[in-house]
Amino acid sequence: MPSYTAPTKDMGFVLHEVLKTHEAATPGYADLEPGFTSAVLEEAGKLAGEVLAPLNVVGDHEGCRLENGVVYTPAGFKDAFEQMKDGGWTGLDMPEEFGGQNMPVVLGTAVGELFSGANQAFTMYQGLTHGAASAILAHGTDEQKATYLPKMVSCEWTGTMNLTEPHCGTDLGLMRTKAEPQEDGSYKISGQKIFISAGDHDMSENVIHLVLAKIPGGPEGIKGVSLFIVPKFMVAEDGSAGARNSVSVGNLEKKMGIHGNATCVMNYDEATGYLLGDMHKGMRAMFTMMNEARLGVAMQGLAQAEAAYQNAVIYAKDRLQGRDVTGVKNPDGPADPLIVHPDIRRALMDQKSFIEGARAFLLWGATLIDQAHRAEDKDADDLISLMTPVLKGFLSDQGYDMTVLAQQIYGGHGYIEEHGMSQFTRDARITQIYEGANGVQALDLVGRKLAAGGGKPIMGFFDMIKSYCKEQGDDEAMAEFIAPLKEASKHLQSSAMYFMQSGMKNPNDALAGSYDFMHLFGHVCLGFMWARSARAALDALASGTSDATFYETKLTTARYYMSRRLPATAMHLARIESGSATVMGLTADQF
Amino acid sequence: MPSYTAPTKDMGFVLHEVLKTHEAATPGYADLEPGFTSAVLEEAGKLAGEVLAPLNVVGDHEGCRLENGVVYTPAGFKDAFEQMKDGGWTGLDMPEEFGGQNMPVVLGTAVGELFSGANQAFTMYQGLTHGAASAILAHGTDEQKATYLPKMVSCEWTGTMNLTEPHCGTDLGLMRTKAEPQEDGSYKISGQKIFISAGDHDMSENVIHLVLAKIPGGPEGIKGVSLFIVPKFMVAEDGSAGARNSVSVGNLEKKMGIHGNATCVMNYDEATGYLLGDMHKGMRAMFTMMNEARLGVAMQGLAQAEAAYQNAVIYAKDRLQGRDVTGVKNPDGPADPLIVHPDIRRALMDQKSFIEGARAFLLWGATLIDQAHRAEDKDADDLISLMTPVLKGFLSDQGYDMTVLAQQIYGGHGYIEEHGMSQFTRDARITQIYEGANGVQALDLVGRKLAAGGGKPIMGFFDMIKSYCKEQGDDEAMAEFIAPLKEASKHLQSSAMYFMQSGMKNPNDALAGSYDFMHLFGHVCLGFMWARSARAALDALASGTSDATFYETKLTTARYYMSRRLPATAMHLARIESGSATVMGLTADQF
Repeated sequence: MPSYTAPTKDMGFVLHEVLKTHEAATPGYADLEPGFTSAVLEEAGKLAGEVLAPLNVVGDHEGCRLENGVVYTPAGFKDAFEQMKDGGWTGLDMPEEFGGQNMPVVLGTAVGELFSGANQAFTMYQGLTHGAASAILAHGTDEQKATYLPKMVSCEWTGTMNLTEPHCGTDLGLMRTKAEPQEDGSYKISGQKIFISAGDHDMSENVIHLVLAKIPGGPEGIKGVSLFIVPKFMVAEDGSAGARNSVSVGNLEKKMGIHGNATCVMNYDEATGYLLGDMHKGMRAMFTMMNEARLGVAMQGLAQAEAAYQNAVIYAKDRLQGRDVTGVKNPDGPADPLIVHPDIRRALMDQKSFIEGARAFLLWGATLIDQAHRAEDKDADDLISLMTPVLKGFLSDQGYDMTVLAQQIYGGHGYIEEHGMSQFTRDARITQIYEGANGVQALDLVGRKLAAGGGKPIMGFFDMIKSYCKEQGDDEAMAEFIAPLKEASKHLQSSAMYFMQSGMKNPNDALAGSYDFMHLFGHVCLGFMWARSARAALDALASGTSDATFYETKLTTARYYMSRRLPATAMHLARIESGSATVMGLTADQF
Repeated sequence: MPSYTAPTKDMGFVLHEVLKTHEAATPGYADLEPGFTSAVLEEAGKLAGEVLAPLNVVGDHEGCRLENGVVYTPAGFKDAFEQMKDGGWTGLDMPEEFGGQNMPVVLGTAVGELFSGANQAFTMYQGLTHGAASAILAHGTDEQKATYLPKMVSCEWTGTMNLTEPHCGTDLGLMRTKAEPQEDGSYKISGQKIFISAGDHDMSENVIHLVLAKIPGGPEGIKGVSLFIVPKFMVAEDGSAGARNSVSVGNLEKKMGIHGNATCVMNYDEATGYLLGDMHKGMRAMFTMMNEARLGVAMQGLAQAEAAYQNAVIYAKDRLQGRDVTGVKNPDGPADPLIVHPDIRRALMDQKSFIEGARAFLLWGATLIDQAHRAEDKDADDLISLMTPVLKGFLSDQGYDMTVLAQQIYGGHGYIEEHGMSQFTRDARITQIYEGANGVQALDLVGRKLAAGGGKPIMGFFDMIKSYCKEQGDDEAMAEFIAPLKEASKHLQSSAMYFMQSGMKNPNDALAGSYDFMHLFGHVCLGFMWARSARAALDALASGTSDATFYETKLTTARYYMSRRLPATAMHLARIESGSATVMGLTADQF
């Protein structure tokens, strides 16, 4: 069975030496002293490694089951959920007035990686609740907040997001679910929603569904969509779960992975619902959840890569196969461990350099959310809005690829289910799809975010990289990191320039390169993170750290990313600059 | 449920217009008239589409089961196997004297793609038998051939390859299975083999295992390994299956995919076996099967990509979601089909340009095998030997990636098992692992094949590309294909040069780039195939074909490959030229 060890030291490095969160002016960040964050992460790591990780394979093998309309989670999930609740983990970054601990999002994100790396399917029950609670927090009336938030922050009640219908996922304007206004101000919701993660289960007293639906007579398409709170059990006078609402589970989907999470077909049959936020402004309210959810999916992609990588390292050190061509390394054994072989190293370094760079990128993104929300910093808000599709698309694509690389190190033993390596790839695969398939992220990035604010956010991004390169340019020790970052950033600028020039004439010239642009952007961000990590490592070494090996490892890994991964940016630029001629060159019939 | 339509027209194009097999001097190729091959492919396509494809999902859901030592295949497999045998498909390229039809390997490979694309797990039962029969054909005594081949060519008896043991896969020198010589010239085989595909089942009267084992007292390691024929049932005097041999199925593996194929743990407990080929030369005999098997795996990677692609195209044309940004395409419908969107096109064109290029590469490889065997052409033998790891590694890696792209087009519907898109990725995944994991293919390519014959084969490859570019250089219509091919080929040459120079000093500098080299090589081969396909299309158009759209489609797809896929070669070169410094920069403890 695979193991999971919380990567708390690497997290501490990112938080305190790269991002220096405890020195930031963001309200609440002064609390994030290294001693405090490490205590929190160690404690979360224990729950992750000792309780959640052992249930990961159980969840995969057993799955959920639907019996007489009731969904049962795999053995052990319920107890583990109680432990997560008892530890106060469910409301870490929620307001104190609703029972949360008001910690910054950056800490919640770090903790989330630990839980998700240990058991993605399980952690989704809490993650979806968090997303739904955030939407109520942002758009609910005081009464709605008082009714739902305390129980959702504690996860006594869990939450869901109901967007997709059988005939529409991305294009929600096509939705058919209806909300008929009632005299008492409530609505009767009718329709079918599919792919509802954590849609129903036996771990909470109540499930609070947030459901997108159309109020008859409203505007056509996406502009006539509203968001509703539809509880599984009606809330009684005393605030407890009361009579059953007419929402039911039609089916549980059989999926490639995340078997431990109940993916439900939800049927609403004149179920009672309450408008959340403004009428016909449901998409805006939903996007409060979606942006948070997209950062969460980026985190999941990274988390699965980390979990798979840890096991690949153990196997590569343990499995004896072949001899080092430069000289036997294990003369007393029948063969050398896999890790002596250069191609195994290539695969491990691809994983390591991605994971650590991605973690820095993710946590940097989380600090921007904190800055935006806690310090009302518009620039930070614009930047994270620009980078959200990059985080989601790049980290989930690459995270998935890394789980495949980790599985490959096991050879045939990776293909059988016994070692759990297949599960990491099967679970990671969903991160490329849900909360907006990655092609939709690329479309959002190029079709919407690039031009947002007259292009000010992307220009701000380029300036930031430029300033950093200039600032570091005098330090010779940094030259090997700054030069490739500059080059990669130039490729990104050239792409943006191409989009501006050609996309004006033919939008397809921009959209045909959107996916490559998302990946090119991601590589520049990871290059930036590795340059900053190298800076932090050089500083630590210069200050005479007693842990020199740790920092030298960071430098070598940074060099690997610069020399082995960043060369991808030129390829992406070449693809982008080929425009749409060949991409769109065939008629549909020619396929 | 996914569908499968045999791509016979594309196959005919490759065979008769690109490779011009019917005009080749290779013995037997004169038979391959377009009318004949298309009749064969149409017939095979019927079996594939109507019989094998509908059983693909059945096999995945039902899997095999082991009851009281007997393995049962999924419902319908047995009948389908009878139909495959009745059609004479199992011995298509086997000698007539043993009941085969003596067709060239190139035709067998094309037919194999159809069966494998329709149902990989099923087709493996025949594929393994073919491999085992080939080894007996090459290394068996006349008596062994007479005893086993007629029944194996007809698949009345099936065959297996037994290499892997729990502690050794790639490094077979570590193997522990023993073969004790007996007075009658036979051997008693004892040991455990794992991951034995088609190891046992209910579709044939007998299973002929080819088993690698060590004769005590022989040389250490890989040089002391011999190959044995170990029948499940001893062959009786009259040639029929007689008494049970002491070989049994210990377990069936639970796998990520190919559920319909029985992957067995095989226990040999003093089982009677017969030496096949020379004592201690088992690896050589086994490699007769391995090279054929590796071409077969390349074919499987391509076949799964084709099957997944076909369904992605159907879905992209059918599913209505969003609007074409350049203008509504389906004004009477609620939305436009997915296929109007540039990023969907990008994904479909990646698949299409890979699949058609890969098919040409594969069938070209098969013609080289025919040339080598039927015309005893040493150069052809050297070239296919060089390219076998490229075919296996590149086609299975890319084939897998293409199934993932196809699945992605389905969005959430690709992640649930209902549409069968997940199965294509799960089945394709094994092709990167078995018959030598792709890292081992890269090692074989750079560590062995590049230097083979003093580098003559690789020099011959470069000369061939150079000559072709020169020959086509005068034709302006070919310039857009020849220029990128030249550039890509230059990158491949620079890589080989780097290996020669740096690899001499430090072999790790070569091995650290082996995987990138394999992919760079693959791209050059596909670029070459697309240039030749463009040539064939231009010729057809010049001759006033009535099917101009078909050839125009080829030209656009060729352009796509050149402009969108070939830019990868520069990235691979950059990675390769970064050497091993960062790849090998960490100690094992630093991971």
